[in-house]
Amino acid sequence: MSKELVFGHQNPDTDTIASAMAYAYYQNQLGYEAEAVALGEPNDETKFALDKFDFEPLRLIETAANETDQVMLVDHNEPQQSVSDIDQVTVTHLIDHHRVNGFNTSAPLFMSVRPYGSVSTILTEMFQAKNINIPANLAGMLLSGLISDTLLLKSPTTTDHDREALTYLANLAQVDANDYGIQMLKAGTNLAAKSDEQIVDGDAKTFELGSSKVRIGQVNTVDLADVFSRQADLEATMKTLMDANGYDTFLLVATNILDSDSELLFVGANADKVEAAFEKSLNDQNRMDLPGVVSRKKQVVPPLTAAFEN
Amino acid sequence: MSKELVFGHQNPDTDTIASAMAYAYYQNQLGYEAEAVALGEPNDETKFALDKFDFEPLRLIETAANETDQVMLVDHNEPQQSVSDIDQVTVTHLIDHHRVNGFNTSAPLFMSVRPYGSVSTILTEMFQAKNINIPANLAGMLLSGLISDTLLLKSPTTTDHDREALTYLANLAQVDANDYGIQMLKAGTNLAAKSDEQIVDGDAKTFELGSSKVRIGQVNTVDLADVFSRQADLEATMKTLMDANGYDTFLLVATNILDSDSELLFVGANADKVEAAFEKSLNDQNRMDLPGVVSRKKQVVPPLTAAFEN
Repeated sequence: MSKELVFGHQNPDTDTIASAMAYAYYQNQLGYEAEAVALGEPNDETKFALDKFDFEPLRLIETAANETDQVMLVDHNEPQQSVSDIDQVTVTHLIDHHRVNGFNTSAPLFMSVRPYGSVSTILTEMFQAKNINIPANLAGMLLSGLISDTLLLKSPTTTDHDREALTYLANLAQVDANDYGIQMLKAGTNLAAKSDEQIVDGDAKTFELGSSKVRIGQVNTVDLADVFSRQADLEATMKTLMDANGYDTFLLVATNILDSDSELLFVGANADKVEAAFEKSLNDQNRMDLPGVVSRKKQVVPPLTAAFEN
Repeated sequence: MSKELVFGHQNPDTDTIASAMAYAYYQNQLGYEAEAVALGEPNDETKFALDKFDFEPLRLIETAANETDQVMLVDHNEPQQSVSDIDQVTVTHLIDHHRVNGFNTSAPLFMSVRPYGSVSTILTEMFQAKNINIPANLAGMLLSGLISDTLLLKSPTTTDHDREALTYLANLAQVDANDYGIQMLKAGTNLAAKSDEQIVDGDAKTFELGSSKVRIGQVNTVDLADVFSRQADLEATMKTLMDANGYDTFLLVATNILDSDSELLFVGANADKVEAAFEKSLNDQNRMDLPGVVSRKKQVVPPLTAAFEN
């Protein structure tokens, strides 16, 4: 059997990169050949974490079937968020914390989904359950993934499992979780250095909602004005990407990580469904305040799913 | 929050009943309100196990949404194998050992799929991981589910996890696994007492293969002649069920549990695909020897899936 590839979703974020690295290491410790790879370049936040804990970026792949028959997925299960030729390989393992949608196999597999704040947390518990030591620098990456996905435990996706894992990992990595976490999150919000496409699409995922293809991007900032001062350019980029990829709707969720509020920017069709989802109107700039919303997974996708499927 | 219902698949077998009982107990020990129920009457084998370990049959339900919003599934995930109104309730937990197919949620859940021989084995490991004691009579039911699904460890679905769990559970239940297992398996093979419909449909499941709806029944016996002496009546019943339920194809796998061989009976469309799946021809009685085949999940569904999707 050839070496299995381990990877997270397209447009990788810190939790996807950290969990691919940690799950490959975990499998290696159990005696299996596995290599962590990535479906895209690390973002600024992930680069900050990789630098801090002295790792090189993962090798990039565009397809999997050219080098292996079997893969392990972390931090995603929906095929359209995975490698382009996912239908050509067998998924033997899957560790995730998202809704399950469109994921089908022809044989049983090893699949653990938990409603936790990060896959880094799930993996931390798996290391603990098997009494496998997590090296300090890998613990630092898992800590980074956990902080990134939970916005330093402020996201409503945060569970007690995440709080316990944060303390455990910070101790192993020998960093102060709060100081390091704020630094890392801020490193991901340097919008001046980002292109319009990086802002709208850098963290975007595609969702099949009802019969519509909905692209949802999210960008973190410490000042929402830094995003919306560029609104005209961002909208033009969203329209271009929408036409090129056949999206029906494109939403950008701009999230202020300091006060845990978001503002939505809407482009495309289905304005009525977006308004129904959040029970409020888009303003005359096609924007909507979403106070207290920080989690795409928990606070954005479920109401949209309900509205689009009605 | 109302009490959650815990149940396995339609046409329940011993592993589905045992794992519903054990998972409800497990959740109760963790402080959650959960009740094990069943989607059908226990079969003869399951009745033998329930009698032996002094349990009443589970309460039957026909729908779930009339009594709860949330359910936990064991031993299945495909919606057409579940309760009829599964789309009206939220699945919060799922423990399974089958392929994942057509199972979609709108939010993250607790989902553990393992490629083990039985769900009883997965649950045994979950009890061990949380240091929850398994009462002797519940261990007896889990042992029964494990023996049933692995044909006393002879099925190719058997893993080292199952072998270890069998020893552990037999010790807790204070029975000899081999003696008890043969008795229990034989109790399920009294074909003279079964109607034609019980034989062809009692353990049947529906699979969406390619664009076809394929019904696959399986019956255990200690003499294949006991099944095929009734072939004309069984075929008539399969045709009636096929017409009434819109199946394109109906297969009955008759399995000799003593020598671990099967013979297939075919009714309906797609003979070419069935022949392609097993790389051999149906004989002039629409039957096919399948030496060494005992597992529908591992040896029947995967080749059919490949053949129907080509």
